[in-house]
Amino acid sequence: MIKKITIIGSGNIANQMGFALYNAGIKIQQIFSRNQKTGTELANKLNTVLINDISKIEKSDLILICINDDNIKQLTDKLPDYPMAHTSGNTSINIFDNKKNSGVIYPVQTIKKEYKINFKTIPICIEANNIIFQQKLISLCKLLSNKIMLISSKKRKKIHLSAVIASNFSNFCYTMSNTILKENNINFDILHDLINQTAKNSTIRDPKLNQTGPAIRNDKKTINEHLKSINNVHYKKLYKLLSKNILKEHEK
Amino acid sequence: MIKKITIIGSGNIANQMGFALYNAGIKIQQIFSRNQKTGTELANKLNTVLINDISKIEKSDLILICINDDNIKQLTDKLPDYPMAHTSGNTSINIFDNKKNSGVIYPVQTIKKEYKINFKTIPICIEANNIIFQQKLISLCKLLSNKIMLISSKKRKKIHLSAVIASNFSNFCYTMSNTILKENNINFDILHDLINQTAKNSTIRDPKLNQTGPAIRNDKKTINEHLKSINNVHYKKLYKLLSKNILKEHEK
Repeated sequence: MIKKITIIGSGNIANQMGFALYNAGIKIQQIFSRNQKTGTELANKLNTVLINDISKIEKSDLILICINDDNIKQLTDKLPDYPMAHTSGNTSINIFDNKKNSGVIYPVQTIKKEYKINFKTIPICIEANNIIFQQKLISLCKLLSNKIMLISSKKRKKIHLSAVIASNFSNFCYTMSNTILKENNINFDILHDLINQTAKNSTIRDPKLNQTGPAIRNDKKTINEHLKSINNVHYKKLYKLLSKNILKEHEK
Repeated sequence: MIKKITIIGSGNIANQMGFALYNAGIKIQQIFSRNQKTGTELANKLNTVLINDISKIEKSDLILICINDDNIKQLTDKLPDYPMAHTSGNTSINIFDNKKNSGVIYPVQTIKKEYKINFKTIPICIEANNIIFQQKLISLCKLLSNKIMLISSKKRKKIHLSAVIASNFSNFCYTMSNTILKENNINFDILHDLINQTAKNSTIRDPKLNQTGPAIRNDKKTINEHLKSINNVHYKKLYKLLSKNILKEHEK
């Protein structure tokens, strides 16, 4: 059983996963981070010590790697052969090469350290290089969430891609909307109900069936008026391309 | 007080507004619709009669126009000078020209007739050409919603534009995600929690502050891997443009 964990990183995932695990009774043995400020903050929060020398990493039940995708390979090559897992949606388990016990714990959620997050309803995708370690990762993650899934690296990459489109891109739509409303001194809360309902609808029926608006009606007059009224040239280009694609999708 | 309403149209808005008003105790005097099938269905639902000859429209307290934006002008020109309001976000009140009592009732929500809709939390934007009729429209809409706002045509158009971006475009993001997951035999419900949380976050903090993902990190490796793994050339182009814009927005 996994009882002691070392966390690599002190960013959004390190904070949220670390805090959730700590709250679930897991001992956080060390935090390894090159960022003195965020590293110290996290170590204090999790009642543990910060180290910034990789050779000082002690053996624990799991090294949880919560750093940018680009840095994972370089880091793991320097780590001793302790049990380890990364938390990246888009990184294959093969990055661990010949480590004896390695795996992936990928929570499907948009994670910022400032949020309050309840992991209970967040799907966690698990993968491991052997069945015993896989079982250990599952038991660990069951402390956090009720939605544990075994997912291969190949499928996880597709889930990550879809998550980026469904979450990061829709959030950018909210950002554009908010900018336009601000320019006109209108409070964004006039859209709150709409935004939540649109999201909720997609969880009830195929989102393709939920499409409304001028693009699907090919209402050129409204589309052209909207385009004229958008000041930001980049938003204008996106509005045009998104509308074109909505129409195309529904001509199929 | 408005007690008797004639509804023009038998589409999504006509159905939902009609049903909500009927349930609130308003008498629906007539439905005018050129579509025999949907018109009859709606008339039956609202315990009233369908007419398809505009000269047969009787006087009522309000003619509620729930048709496509493009057809409103042509219709109102043919209507006698009875009190009337349209329900379009993007259409100016000036479309009514010299009618004695005219106005707008615009619910800020994505509306399909198949949904169950609770109007109570939906903001309704009201405008009228005189203060007495405005008060009548307010009283009527208070039967439906707790969020009645007086909004000018100019501001309403901006709200409609923002609503299209925040709702129609984010729904298209969900559609793209779902298509990619389907291609890989993954159930869309793995994203439900993420989609709802992303929407909810935007109602708690400025969505710009909520942005996460490879684009804002300028994580080119992930972005390029994603682009390679998208089969649909149109989705690929949108992914690229949205990512570019997210990065640009956060360089400001």
